[in-house]
Amino acid sequence: MAGSTFGSRISVTTWGESHGEALGVVIDGFPAGLKLGTEDIQEYLDRRKPGQSRFTTARAEGDKVEILSGVFEGQTTGTPIALMVRNTDQHSKDYGNIATTFRPGHADYSFFEKFGFRDYRGGGRSSGRETIGRVAAGAVCAKLLKELGIEVFAYTKKIGDISVEEFQLGERDMNPLAMPDAEAAKKAQEYLDACMFNKDSAGGVVECVITGVPAGVGDPVFEKLDAKLAQALVSIGAVKGVEIGDGFGVATTTGSINNDEFFMSESGIQKETNHSGGILGGISDGDDIIVRAAIKPTPSISQKQHTVNEDMEEVDIEISGRHDPIIVPRAVVVVEAMCAITICDAILGHMTDRVDYIKEFYKI
Amino acid sequence: MAGSTFGSRISVTTWGESHGEALGVVIDGFPAGLKLGTEDIQEYLDRRKPGQSRFTTARAEGDKVEILSGVFEGQTTGTPIALMVRNTDQHSKDYGNIATTFRPGHADYSFFEKFGFRDYRGGGRSSGRETIGRVAAGAVCAKLLKELGIEVFAYTKKIGDISVEEFQLGERDMNPLAMPDAEAAKKAQEYLDACMFNKDSAGGVVECVITGVPAGVGDPVFEKLDAKLAQALVSIGAVKGVEIGDGFGVATTTGSINNDEFFMSESGIQKETNHSGGILGGISDGDDIIVRAAIKPTPSISQKQHTVNEDMEEVDIEISGRHDPIIVPRAVVVVEAMCAITICDAILGHMTDRVDYIKEFYKI
Amino acid sequence: MAGSTFGSRISVTTWGESHGEALGVVIDGFPAGLKLGTEDIQEYLDRRKPGQSRFTTARAEGDKVEILSGVFEGQTTGTPIALMVRNTDQHSKDYGNIATTFRPGHADYSFFEKFGFRDYRGGGRSSGRETIGRVAAGAVCAKLLKELGIEVFAYTKKIGDISVEEFQLGERDMNPLAMPDAEAAKKAQEYLDACMFNKDSAGGVVECVITGVPAGVGDPVFEKLDAKLAQALVSIGAVKGVEIGDGFGVATTTGSINNDEFFMSESGIQKETNHSGGILGGISDGDDIIVRAAIKPTPSISQKQHTVNEDMEEVDIEISGRHDPIIVPRAVVVVEAMCAITICDAILGHMTDRVDYIKEFYKI
Amino acid sequence: MAGSTFGSRISVTTWGESHGEALGVVIDGFPAGLKLGTEDIQEYLDRRKPGQSRFTTARAEGDKVEILSGVFEGQTTGTPIALMVRNTDQHSKDYGNIATTFRPGHADYSFFEKFGFRDYRGGGRSSGRETIGRVAAGAVCAKLLKELGIEVFAYTKKIGDISVEEFQLGERDMNPLAMPDAEAAKKAQEYLDACMFNKDSAGGVVECVITGVPAGVGDPVFEKLDAKLAQALVSIGAVKGVEIGDGFGVATTTGSINNDEFFMSESGIQKETNHSGGILGGISDGDDIIVRAAIKPTPSISQKQHTVNEDMEEVDIEISGRHDPIIVPRAVVVVEAMCAITICDAILGHMTDRVDYIKEFYKI
Repeated sequence: MAGSTFGSRISVTTWGESHGEALGVVIDGFPAGLKLGTEDIQEYLDRRKPGQSRFTTARAEGDKVEILSGVFEGQTTGTPIALMVRNTDQHSKDYGNIATTFRPGHADYSFFEKFGFRDYRGGGRSSGRETIGRVAAGAVCAKLLKELGIEVFAYTKKIGDISVEEFQLGERDMNPLAMPDAEAAKKAQEYLDACMFNKDSAGGVVECVITGVPAGVGDPVFEKLDAKLAQALVSIGAVKGVEIGDGFGVATTTGSINNDEFFMSESGIQKETNHSGGILGGISDGDDIIVRAAIKPTPSISQKQHTVNEDMEEVDIEISGRHDPIIVPRAVVVVEAMCAITICDAILGHMTDRVDYIKEFYKI
Repeated sequence: MAGSTFGSRISVTTWGESHGEALGVVIDGFPAGLKLGTEDIQEYLDRRKPGQSRFTTARAEGDKVEILSGVFEGQTTGTPIALMVRNTDQHSKDYGNIATTFRPGHADYSFFEKFGFRDYRGGGRSSGRETIGRVAAGAVCAKLLKELGIEVFAYTKKIGDISVEEFQLGERDMNPLAMPDAEAAKKAQEYLDACMFNKDSAGGVVECVITGVPAGVGDPVFEKLDAKLAQALVSIGAVKGVEIGDGFGVATTTGSINNDEFFMSESGIQKETNHSGGILGGISDGDDIIVRAAIKPTPSISQKQHTVNEDMEEVDIEISGRHDPIIVPRAVVVVEAMCAITICDAILGHMTDRVDYIKEFYKI
Repeated sequence: MAGSTFGSRISVTTWGESHGEALGVVIDGFPAGLKLGTEDIQEYLDRRKPGQSRFTTARAEGDKVEILSGVFEGQTTGTPIALMVRNTDQHSKDYGNIATTFRPGHADYSFFEKFGFRDYRGGGRSSGRETIGRVAAGAVCAKLLKELGIEVFAYTKKIGDISVEEFQLGERDMNPLAMPDAEAAKKAQEYLDACMFNKDSAGGVVECVITGVPAGVGDPVFEKLDAKLAQALVSIGAVKGVEIGDGFGVATTTGSINNDEFFMSESGIQKETNHSGGILGGISDGDDIIVRAAIKPTPSISQKQHTVNEDMEEVDIEISGRHDPIIVPRAVVVVEAMCAITICDAILGHMTDRVDYIKEFYKI
Repeated sequence: MAGSTFGSRISVTTWGESHGEALGVVIDGFPAGLKLGTEDIQEYLDRRKPGQSRFTTARAEGDKVEILSGVFEGQTTGTPIALMVRNTDQHSKDYGNIATTFRPGHADYSFFEKFGFRDYRGGGRSSGRETIGRVAAGAVCAKLLKELGIEVFAYTKKIGDISVEEFQLGERDMNPLAMPDAEAAKKAQEYLDACMFNKDSAGGVVECVITGVPAGVGDPVFEKLDAKLAQALVSIGAVKGVEIGDGFGVATTTGSINNDEFFMSESGIQKETNHSGGILGGISDGDDIIVRAAIKPTPSISQKQHTVNEDMEEVDIEISGRHDPIIVPRAVVVVEAMCAITICDAILGHMTDRVDYIKEFYKI
């Protein structure tokens, strides 16, 4: 089953395992003429890099990106952009019983049942390192979007019970939790310290706000813009829920409140409120697009857990080594990346929606 | 943008508008040899039919399905199955200012911006009637799944603040809200009566439980089984959020609780709990697959609303006629259909996952 | 295996069997705003209709097309266009041993092996009637292309050994063989009369010339414009070969002859010759696009043939009834249709090839 | 436009330019459990390597393949297989007027019109080196096919007017032209020597025979097995025509000859002849699958040619350096590779064609 490709006009194919030779991505269908250098991509990869605080593992991943194709004289050529990050840390080690034991909360068992055997080194393809390709591709798409006036901005909305109360834009990049509220971030760190003390882990919510998307982008049925965003986000390991706009809040509201009324502003048609999260009927309505992803606690914990191994024996397992007590902060840039890819793809799709557009393009 | 097709092995393409000639679906790639008659499909369509209670509009939709191709001597042939429902109620009528006014909460404005004009009759392609094709295709997929021992069962989990407390299987089909808890259903009906009295509408949550899927079905990256379910569900108009397993609850739990421990039962490997909702790393883990969709209140309400028309004038609008005060109960079968299609596609995908499977098939 | 869809931006899905209820097509992703009526489509369908000369069967196929969706107030809406032709001639009849015998040259045996059983009525899905959906979709695409100044014109190039010598544009629609050379058409008719007398059938070659495609349309690798045209043409039943430009002639020429030199004309860059058939490296070079398809003799002949039946018994078979002694003339409009769909899809694809195009579109 | 991916179940994405950092391929959806080492792939790459005779350029391409992902402990894992070949010869050099002049017969002009600028180094993406990814992927697919008893064997059928007369299997790998007829190969070498003396180049035909494919593989409509083979072959740069079975010969034959009669052999149903080339109605008929590709003369010749440059000035150009006087022999392994990928994809597709197959797989 060929499921490592996302997008139709811009098509992103990732490859690579946690402890293989390298990880990477091929971006096909990307338009020609975007100025692009490794620094544009490295900036995004650095945001997902571990070892930047006490809440992320200290693994010495250089994660230096190499542009292998698709860029000539500093510009994209319109042909596939291949990006690669070498694994520098994949020395063989003794995985002990991890190699043959199904870790609770991990994909070990389901992979084993699907493929008959599995790359047990660091989770193989199911590792968080799989997101390197996504982030690299997202950086490229985000750069194009920026040139179109579209910004994709994600942040940690919630950790455990602690939510952002007062949004402070600049604060996101000031604390290790990517939480744009200094007070909330402080509380969340205390909560995480307690989790770590208990050999446990925590979950949270990432929100992403996309500004500048004009009305009319997306599609009415299966490829609704929010449906593709939902796929994009749930395809990130550890995401167990997605909301658009008011999300699950719509269950308890009423139509008279939830309907966003339109009015005329100087810049055109606008909405009084944005319960819809910028998408109506699967198509952008010109307002900010707002999505959220619920992210489960890191499944690797050093508490003893009961489980089963490949020989169908019940065993106890303690996952040694250091593990991030939370995935959320490092997932922020992954959410941004997936949203950038999705929006970029839809932006291109809209260009062929009308006969008038086609005639204008071909100067008929 | 060609977005009316869903699925890769089994590929479902819907077509049709609310007040056009007909609506339908083409199911391509469906395996040969399934016994199939119109009654199999009609049963599902009847469940989404309106006019069955005071909470659904009385429109006289016969919604009789016709099998146009792909079935010969009572069996699927392996070639495209085309199904059609004629619109019997599409007589021209005066749409008044609805024809040129952007109804709040509807896709009128976003469609207009996308396509430059729109079929204003009953919402055109963005109407709930678009789901007829989905439900018809879902019925066919569900029938195949049943033969494999897989059941897809959805129900109203929540309306407003009222949730199912005590699950009563048989009750789902006994009340007009598809709520498997007689007590909750009673309260919900009172809540809806109040909404209707206020010329308002209500939202809710549909849950779907899929039993019998063996472990190993799905894919590790962009086509994760839950990612495709998320796309499938959010692609249903009015869905604003999706959860798998514990969903947004994972934000506030810890790893030691959220990880489902494995044990050996007589029937093989099983999990003590099912926080994962039956999917780990995008692949089924053998447990029940559990998903939920948040559904917004019907945007058509008869309260006066402020909005803008195609001439960019601000106007007030009152949407006359009767409208369902809630979409949720009729969405139940649509959720079931989309889950059936998604699972069916993945079930076929697993068959080519291993060289051993291929050798066995070709008797090497 | 879902193989009834063609095209990526404009996506064409056909369905239907020779003697089922109906045949049809769904065109998804087609841009909004094209004036379209049944007459536009009927004109193309009438060209493939049988019973128009002594060389085509007299079956009373009305083949009246119905537009079921995607057109509102005489214009395409941007949502799926569903077109249908009812089978009026599918009364049950006695198929005799045809029902269980594998006709030589037909797909009976290969279908049986693939699906385990088959719709034996008139070939089912493998019938030439399957092309109704293609032709209907091609008519829609051709209409859009015409508005862009692109014409797709196919004709019978060769029947048996008789080729068009002196091309006479208007003659194509004047003789029953669609052969734009009155003299050649006359000889070909004599040849076909002899074939019919011998209870035999004949093959030939269709050529298609596409004018007005600007340079720069197509793609460099697997989706080369000629590669997609090749797939499009070979996907027509009975086509056994395809050529672009000089085709198999390139085997015996040399580079100095085969290379088309460029020069500057008043209208821009042009080529002195057109050995390339208008495509270089998979991308249009601004010259006429020229493709040819080799079409095998009708496999249904009334001579006695030796074969095998479903019970694995060797039997003789005589296919009674009247059959077209040649497929070629009726294939002309099918070739045109497939070329129109392919070019239309590529034309849309080019619009997103450059960052500059995107910025211009979004007025950045 | 995302056109660098081929295949649906097994999905092959190539990337890389002639003088970029590297070239490679990602094979997604490939089943788990195939023993695979670099040597399996290197063997195929070595067959397309230049510098092996006086008819191929002496460029010192090592073309050593690296497996970057998808293989663990010597077996495919079911996750994407990424393969890469570093360009060792991409030192910057002075391309002189080649950089801005449109070479006749090359894709320079059409690329320029498509993308607005182009990587002029060695043709960039349109170079024959693009086939490295195809050959690497083809090697992997061919290995799987071999385990299923399916062999893919291509060879030079014709160079100029010289055709293989007496097929000698072992001879293919004994002469530099991959021509399995020592006598014909000798004449062809003389012909090529004359071409080189004239600063000219030659074309030819490659034939591919695929044995061991059971009946029932392929699809009835747009994804006909021969239609996909046609796309696969025409997508190879320089291919201008494709034939299946008797190909263009069907134009001049009659049905009574062209129809292959069936008979019962000890091993089951067989055909007396194989005019169909092993495919009927798009589906394999159990006989050898036979396809041919016409390959144009190398467009790079050192004769003076007239053309136009990017400033729209007419200029003369002489392409200095050594160039292969013929592409055909090196294309043989590329044709094999594309056929292997196409067949492999179809082989997997057949496994889900019947409800019975699915029940058998899931042991219902």
